[in-house]
Amino acid sequence: MTQRSIDKHNTLAVADIGYVVGVDIGATNLRMALADMTGVIMARHSSSTAGIRSAETVIALIRNGVESLLNEISAPAHALKAVAAGAPGITDVDAGIVVATSYLMGWRDVPLRALLENALEVPVAVDNDVNLAAIGESWIGAAKNVRDFVFLAIGTGIGASIVLNSKPFRGATWAAGEIGYMLVPGTSDRPGNHGEPGALESLIGGEGIKTQWQKLWSTDRSTLPKDLTATEIFDQAIAGDALAQSVLEQTARMLSYTIYNMTLVLNCPLFVLGGGVGIHPALCSWTQSMLERLNMRSQPHLAGSALGTDAQLMGAIRLALDTAGSRSTLFANQAAAKE
Amino acid sequence: MTQRSIDKHNTLAVADIGYVVGVDIGATNLRMALADMTGVIMARHSSSTAGIRSAETVIALIRNGVESLLNEISAPAHALKAVAAGAPGITDVDAGIVVATSYLMGWRDVPLRALLENALEVPVAVDNDVNLAAIGESWIGAAKNVRDFVFLAIGTGIGASIVLNSKPFRGATWAAGEIGYMLVPGTSDRPGNHGEPGALESLIGGEGIKTQWQKLWSTDRSTLPKDLTATEIFDQAIAGDALAQSVLEQTARMLSYTIYNMTLVLNCPLFVLGGGVGIHPALCSWTQSMLERLNMRSQPHLAGSALGTDAQLMGAIRLALDTAGSRSTLFANQAAAKE
Repeated sequence: MTQRSIDKHNTLAVADIGYVVGVDIGATNLRMALADMTGVIMARHSSSTAGIRSAETVIALIRNGVESLLNEISAPAHALKAVAAGAPGITDVDAGIVVATSYLMGWRDVPLRALLENALEVPVAVDNDVNLAAIGESWIGAAKNVRDFVFLAIGTGIGASIVLNSKPFRGATWAAGEIGYMLVPGTSDRPGNHGEPGALESLIGGEGIKTQWQKLWSTDRSTLPKDLTATEIFDQAIAGDALAQSVLEQTARMLSYTIYNMTLVLNCPLFVLGGGVGIHPALCSWTQSMLERLNMRSQPHLAGSALGTDAQLMGAIRLALDTAGSRSTLFANQAAAKE
Repeated sequence: MTQRSIDKHNTLAVADIGYVVGVDIGATNLRMALADMTGVIMARHSSSTAGIRSAETVIALIRNGVESLLNEISAPAHALKAVAAGAPGITDVDAGIVVATSYLMGWRDVPLRALLENALEVPVAVDNDVNLAAIGESWIGAAKNVRDFVFLAIGTGIGASIVLNSKPFRGATWAAGEIGYMLVPGTSDRPGNHGEPGALESLIGGEGIKTQWQKLWSTDRSTLPKDLTATEIFDQAIAGDALAQSVLEQTARMLSYTIYNMTLVLNCPLFVLGGGVGIHPALCSWTQSMLERLNMRSQPHLAGSALGTDAQLMGAIRLALDTAGSRSTLFANQAAAKE
């Protein structure tokens, strides 16, 4: 073995000791995980973002989180190879800019990638959180080895990632899959206001489901509390409460219309339901049977998210691993040029 | 110059003298055009398909049409290099099979390409007629140089071709764009039956518009005849008839919901409206203004088809030209192997 080939091997060995961090920026929680270069999670960190709207504050929370994660596994700062972050809104992946988030965050044109690269001094990638969840499910979840599928997230709001040829389809202005505004039988058809919940999510998003329950609820009609979350309502539906069943039924019906319409457009064979509300198994099974009644020629299969609330985080880790592979040299050159 | 290079030049010169035929198979008319290898139409032919449901009879009509077209320009049979045909239904382009047409034709799994290749002894390509119209508009029409757009055809029924990266997007079972079944506010949400008009087209397809007019019509409410076609109703709306305006308004409103929903999914910047009803300029302008009222973040542009009723035929010619280029050698080898 020549001296040169030994050097090369040593360099590779050192370079292999590294980590990436995935970040899921939510309107109520910031969730982070540190993984080794094979994608195995070594440490987790989370903090509250309730009431926090400033991007700078979120960046500071992420920087603290990264430090804390590296400390937890006693790794030096230079072991961090890349970070990927998911934001709850329309994201220009090429420019690294969060174009617009929902009413909960209110971000407009936030250069998230540049802010994070300045703060962390490693290559950063950013994407929409629903797209990251789809990437996670595609990597090690319910859509593993599936080329074309839709990840449909129902949390407070509703959004979809449309995966074609194993990649999220973006649309002309990064807004593909913004289905929270979809118009189906039963939704309002009044013009929506940007930054307010869309016609569909105002009825069958997490908050919408709570509102429907409260509208129907009275002491005559239910012995259950007026204040229940969407998933608690679904739990009560399974337990046999008639009023909760009518809310679940309406939610499943409108969700089946949405999936029906998307299938007409895309002829997609698989829909993965995710998000805090979407992962409830009763919603998946009721929606599947409603969809079957609509008698489509090409009936899609519905599956619950396999990664659950970790889908976004796992997608962020996958994206961070890809970023470490593709952008680390470029990033080092750019950093050197700045100095 | 060596003997070999002279031979090669002669062969190329002879091969250049050739023609292709494009075929648009409709439920009422069969339209055909013969073009030279630069796509210039040299002759046209049409015949009625009213009441004809048998694929064999359609094949015979096409064979007669091809002979008549070649006779018209005094070209020998071997000058025909390829044929492309569009069918009004879901078409498996790889296998050359028309999987299912609407209730008007009633075809199921018709091996159209093989039938035509046997009858015509040239390479044949088949596709869905709406996809061919989109290919036509993309080649020399309203979507020239546009990578991503939707061609939305409104004739008797409603269908769409979704062009992504300059190619029709097919879906898992060749059924992408079957939006005649879309559920929007105002449509029925009862399960559809295959082979019957879908929820949307039963209201705003050509026949649906006529039905709406007849439902609203009475001698008190209109001095116009009860029996008007969709385009005649739109003409009367422009001329100021209030009842006709209410039918146009409802059609434009439901079409705007459809385009709105498709835009939420695809974030597509351009919709080209075509088909016998869809090309009416009043429908395009009313729908555009309805769509603007819905206040989308990414407002798509609507344009009328530039090729009008020739869109399918021009797409068929483009496809035939591509087929002559890509499949002629393969076809000759296959034919030789059969002998």
